[in-house]
Amino acid sequence: MTPRIFMLSFKIFTFCLLISVSAVAQQKQSAEMGKSRLEFWLDSNGKPIYTLSWNGRPVILESGLGMKLKEDSTLNTGFELLATENKSVDENWQTVWGEKKTIRNHYKQLTVHLHQKSSPGVYLDLVFRVFEEGMGFRYSFPKQKALSYFIVTEEQTQFHLAGDHRTFWIPGDYDSNEYPYTVSPISGIDNKEVVEKSTEIAVRDAPDRYAVQTPLMMKTSDGLYINIHEAALVNYPAMQLHADKSSLTLTSALVPDAYGNKAYLHAPFSSPWRTIIVSDKAADILDSKLILNLNEPSKTSNTSWIKPMKFVGIWWEMQTGKSGWNYSDFADSVNSKGQLIPNGRHGANNTNVKRHIDFAAKNGIKGVLVEGWNVGWEDWFGKWKEDVFDFVTPYPDYDVKMLTQYAKSKGVELIMHNETSGSATNYERRLDTAFRFMNKYGYHSVKTGYVGRIIPRGEHHDGQWMVNHYERVAQKALQYKVTIDVHEPMRPTGLQRTYPNWLASEAARGNEFNAFSIGNAPSHETILPFTRLMGGPMDYTPGIFKIKGYSTIPDRQVHTTLAKQLALYVTIYSPVQMAADLIENYEEHPDAFQFIRDVAIDWDDTKILEAEPGEFVTIARKARDSESWFAGAITNENGRTARLVLGFLPKGKKYKATIYADAADADWKSNPMAYRITTQTVTAETELSIQLAPGGGAAVSFVPIK
Amino acid sequence: MTPRIFMLSFKIFTFCLLISVSAVAQQKQSAEMGKSRLEFWLDSNGKPIYTLSWNGRPVILESGLGMKLKEDSTLNTGFELLATENKSVDENWQTVWGEKKTIRNHYKQLTVHLHQKSSPGVYLDLVFRVFEEGMGFRYSFPKQKALSYFIVTEEQTQFHLAGDHRTFWIPGDYDSNEYPYTVSPISGIDNKEVVEKSTEIAVRDAPDRYAVQTPLMMKTSDGLYINIHEAALVNYPAMQLHADKSSLTLTSALVPDAYGNKAYLHAPFSSPWRTIIVSDKAADILDSKLILNLNEPSKTSNTSWIKPMKFVGIWWEMQTGKSGWNYSDFADSVNSKGQLIPNGRHGANNTNVKRHIDFAAKNGIKGVLVEGWNVGWEDWFGKWKEDVFDFVTPYPDYDVKMLTQYAKSKGVELIMHNETSGSATNYERRLDTAFRFMNKYGYHSVKTGYVGRIIPRGEHHDGQWMVNHYERVAQKALQYKVTIDVHEPMRPTGLQRTYPNWLASEAARGNEFNAFSIGNAPSHETILPFTRLMGGPMDYTPGIFKIKGYSTIPDRQVHTTLAKQLALYVTIYSPVQMAADLIENYEEHPDAFQFIRDVAIDWDDTKILEAEPGEFVTIARKARDSESWFAGAITNENGRTARLVLGFLPKGKKYKATIYADAADADWKSNPMAYRITTQTVTAETELSIQLAPGGGAAVSFVPIK
Repeated sequence: MTPRIFMLSFKIFTFCLLISVSAVAQQKQSAEMGKSRLEFWLDSNGKPIYTLSWNGRPVILESGLGMKLKEDSTLNTGFELLATENKSVDENWQTVWGEKKTIRNHYKQLTVHLHQKSSPGVYLDLVFRVFEEGMGFRYSFPKQKALSYFIVTEEQTQFHLAGDHRTFWIPGDYDSNEYPYTVSPISGIDNKEVVEKSTEIAVRDAPDRYAVQTPLMMKTSDGLYINIHEAALVNYPAMQLHADKSSLTLTSALVPDAYGNKAYLHAPFSSPWRTIIVSDKAADILDSKLILNLNEPSKTSNTSWIKPMKFVGIWWEMQTGKSGWNYSDFADSVNSKGQLIPNGRHGANNTNVKRHIDFAAKNGIKGVLVEGWNVGWEDWFGKWKEDVFDFVTPYPDYDVKMLTQYAKSKGVELIMHNETSGSATNYERRLDTAFRFMNKYGYHSVKTGYVGRIIPRGEHHDGQWMVNHYERVAQKALQYKVTIDVHEPMRPTGLQRTYPNWLASEAARGNEFNAFSIGNAPSHETILPFTRLMGGPMDYTPGIFKIKGYSTIPDRQVHTTLAKQLALYVTIYSPVQMAADLIENYEEHPDAFQFIRDVAIDWDDTKILEAEPGEFVTIARKARDSESWFAGAITNENGRTARLVLGFLPKGKKYKATIYADAADADWKSNPMAYRITTQTVTAETELSIQLAPGGGAAVSFVPIK
Repeated sequence: MTPRIFMLSFKIFTFCLLISVSAVAQQKQSAEMGKSRLEFWLDSNGKPIYTLSWNGRPVILESGLGMKLKEDSTLNTGFELLATENKSVDENWQTVWGEKKTIRNHYKQLTVHLHQKSSPGVYLDLVFRVFEEGMGFRYSFPKQKALSYFIVTEEQTQFHLAGDHRTFWIPGDYDSNEYPYTVSPISGIDNKEVVEKSTEIAVRDAPDRYAVQTPLMMKTSDGLYINIHEAALVNYPAMQLHADKSSLTLTSALVPDAYGNKAYLHAPFSSPWRTIIVSDKAADILDSKLILNLNEPSKTSNTSWIKPMKFVGIWWEMQTGKSGWNYSDFADSVNSKGQLIPNGRHGANNTNVKRHIDFAAKNGIKGVLVEGWNVGWEDWFGKWKEDVFDFVTPYPDYDVKMLTQYAKSKGVELIMHNETSGSATNYERRLDTAFRFMNKYGYHSVKTGYVGRIIPRGEHHDGQWMVNHYERVAQKALQYKVTIDVHEPMRPTGLQRTYPNWLASEAARGNEFNAFSIGNAPSHETILPFTRLMGGPMDYTPGIFKIKGYSTIPDRQVHTTLAKQLALYVTIYSPVQMAADLIENYEEHPDAFQFIRDVAIDWDDTKILEAEPGEFVTIARKARDSESWFAGAITNENGRTARLVLGFLPKGKKYKATIYADAADADWKSNPMAYRITTQTVTAETELSIQLAPGGGAAVSFVPIK
């Protein structure tokens, strides 16, 4: 290292030292905001330790912080505290789209500047942001001569819990978040059986049977709710949590690459935020915007082209076996001219697409998703094949130019579908071409997919390389003014704030599993808001009216009532919501379909009226730039009465409430499609009680009476 | 598998069966061409066995053929012979550029259609092509229902040798071919020490100490020369050879991916050809075009834009420490505006580039290579960093537009340099942009480089993924009408016939090692033609006049005489040849430099006059579309007399021969730069005897006297 670089580094750190070095001993540092209190200190070995309490109750007991680097396996002890910095922030910011129009960002920040005494003398900052509902913290490596390029072999962040809490978890799989939830005490975490049984999940790789995914939702025996996740996952692998039953400690476990390394970094670098959200009310967990607040503001101020929307599509008919993605039965089913021999079951044909465009136009639905439009579906899956799709070549029965123009003439737009089959290298090579193709034909949004083992081989869906890939796609899409809905990515961490064109992700077990597996338990949708949805919007594809009775899958059904499917448009937040069922199934229930036509897709405000993970969720939302409100209430396998206190309505104003509820004899299993629609006039003083069937739900629209 | 696909497959194989099934027993099959005789049979276990003899002498004793697939680990026994096919070919084809204008392709082909009796009943064809100087054979998987997508976990091709031959080898490294040669009997092959000692090689990964690279050159105790390599390496990893000392058997060892898999394939698929070239004259090995003949014809007939050329460049001055690639000392050496602080040692600056353009123009040299022109060199190497270069952003002191126009005005062109630092994913993402940039500024050729560990992490320079990457780059370059010179690729296998824009590769230990390591032994250049060069042209960068005395590297020198450096322009074949030394060093020896000005770069014909691997090589070549001939003679550490029988000259025609020879007292170590230039009139009857110094050589130009 030369004099010049030494001096540069030296300047930085003398600056830090000047802040308050004299004042700094090795005693405890702390930061408080409302009921949240963080404490930090170095133990006798110079190991960073923190605790978090909430309203005087311990949430995180003494827990260590640190990392192992390829260059330095001891980056977890031997530190001295050089200096600390404190700041306080209270600001409001506007969402481009979201659950609320304005979000308050209110926190106290404590930064501790650490220095490792032993050579090479690495400098490490820990940044804590304490909010009223918990905290976030991150590792920050300043520019320094002791560390330039480095490789993280393990992050050693501990979450030492105060009890054997009730936990809602899915397995810590490197490639999938599409597992059903298990509810158990921390001491009961063991994913082996779930992983083995989940044969409907294409790619499973969960070597640590005691590892779980985040967002991890917990409830203490004395009624405290705790949620652990991360925010702003950029250039770093997803964090999973390894559960140690004996000490009731969760430790960060990062998704590795082919060499078992976790992250390749270059100082200055700041890790994603590790988040802990706490409350004694489950509703407050869902109301928290802590994760969004820890993400960077939008990369662009030019956002007028970004539009939330509802859409229909050629998709559920493949899931239920009415048609297929593939044009031919096999890649080698070709005629003498080498042309594919059609199997007659191809869903993405001109006639069918036009039928969907007409239906969307007639019902004021903006988007039409068409899967299986492009060549490659005959052998797209399970071959670990690199060049599967080219993203620009339609099947012979799909006329891109005609269909995009037809849609435009009807005020509707087609949604592009780019399935990659997990071959990210192939997609990256063709990304510019694919987006140029979209711009040329007037596609403004794309649904991407990553079903299958990842290429580059050795990488995983949730590893650093793929995390960077998804961000590269989001950046490229921004450049081409395209919005994205990503299926099979790593689970969201609030990046939709930074990339407002990243409208939604799947990254969880969606409605589709009801079609091709044992399905989703009735409690599933009551857990999602407390877990997967904490990170961002999900393309869950609600709105299935034909709950069962598909001839092709006679033994399968959706595990909700029809009314609950309507409620999901409110309880599962997303700026893109599919009306997922077949046109003919909607046409059989025009009265119920009216709610899907009416329900808003973007919101000024959101009220969590009732919530208990695994039990029930009731949410009301105010349509953006409108006086209308919409509410959704869902329950698990147990029937119950949803109570909607309408205090959120403006005082003295009358509203017409249209209530889409389960019929008295409805039941998700025996009688799922029985619903009744009633209307009544309500005000802010009204308290609605709506009976929810087992596995049921209710949806309500509130329209002001002029 | 459904009826349709079954019938398709069935048709194919009934077709085969009809050929001659009745005639086929399990007895030996054979094919002969001149002195080469192949025999093939199935042993009692149904294992494919072959032998090769030459002029009645055994070359390959009974050797097994087969593969292990992830889907079927027994694809090496249990076969039955369904049918055989024979054909004979004798054709001539024209080279776009090369050592000869016309090449004869003369072989007998035996195809054996094998079927594995046990389920699933895989069909495998073995295709043998027997030439006068040896043979090539490949595995061919027809389209079939028993095998569609499959993964090769090992190829089990054996080469059972008839004796403990003298062998010229380098270690079987997955990432490098840049080792010095070791000469030992087969029983002496052990690469451990060589690999450990070769610290000058950036990335070394040679887990099998008994594995060697091909082309592998051998000499039997009774004077037979045997060369084993492969042809047409496409969509498959490079083949290395594992040496079993006890049985004197070499077995194919393929370069693996992150999972240890070798190749991901889809039937129909044909493997690269495994080649065995045999002769009792070393010269005939160098004269063989067997490998080119086994490659596919050019992908394009539009080749007029493809031009062989000589070039100078800003490169050796970095190797010898006069200047650097990097503009600044460190990536973080930036001023307050965030601009890099120049270190004053940047070679690729406008003044220096113009000086090289002027020199090239003055001396009739077409190309000027400029390395270090683009940002990223401050921390390009050894960081395993993915986004190193963007391939389009010059340093502040390099004016792309001005320099490309200046070069054009002088009838010279700049050669683009794209160093990837091994990050192939980054290069693939930017490839279109990089080539569009070249087209825009009139660059017609690019030197690419892959120094460092490969990204995708888990892949290797010589694995299937990278083999496909290099081909993708060649295809893309063809599309943009760009010629390529690839450094650090897998070693060539004759693909320059299929991609005539792929002018040269490095893929061996070049002249540069004399600058930054113990260097290349005087015998090195006498081994290269029998090993690395068998696969294709090498960018060796000959022409160093200042053999030693560089102040920055006082302890290093080039291990040849100056005259030998001139001879290399003829003995090392390449359609791109660098005049690698510094301008000032050439200006000190204008008389010797005259040979570099004169020597041709493309040839009508080539005569191997004398050759012995590790000892000496004398070659004469006729300039393409010209009456002039050029000859080069080189020796190892021992002085000797080169005998040039000029029978190749047209009868009765007089030529002026200009002989660039070592001075009487020249010696590569003590007096390397002493040369003498003489001229004499010669005819086809003349026999020149030229004294070569230890480590010396001689170059001769023959110009017809009008």
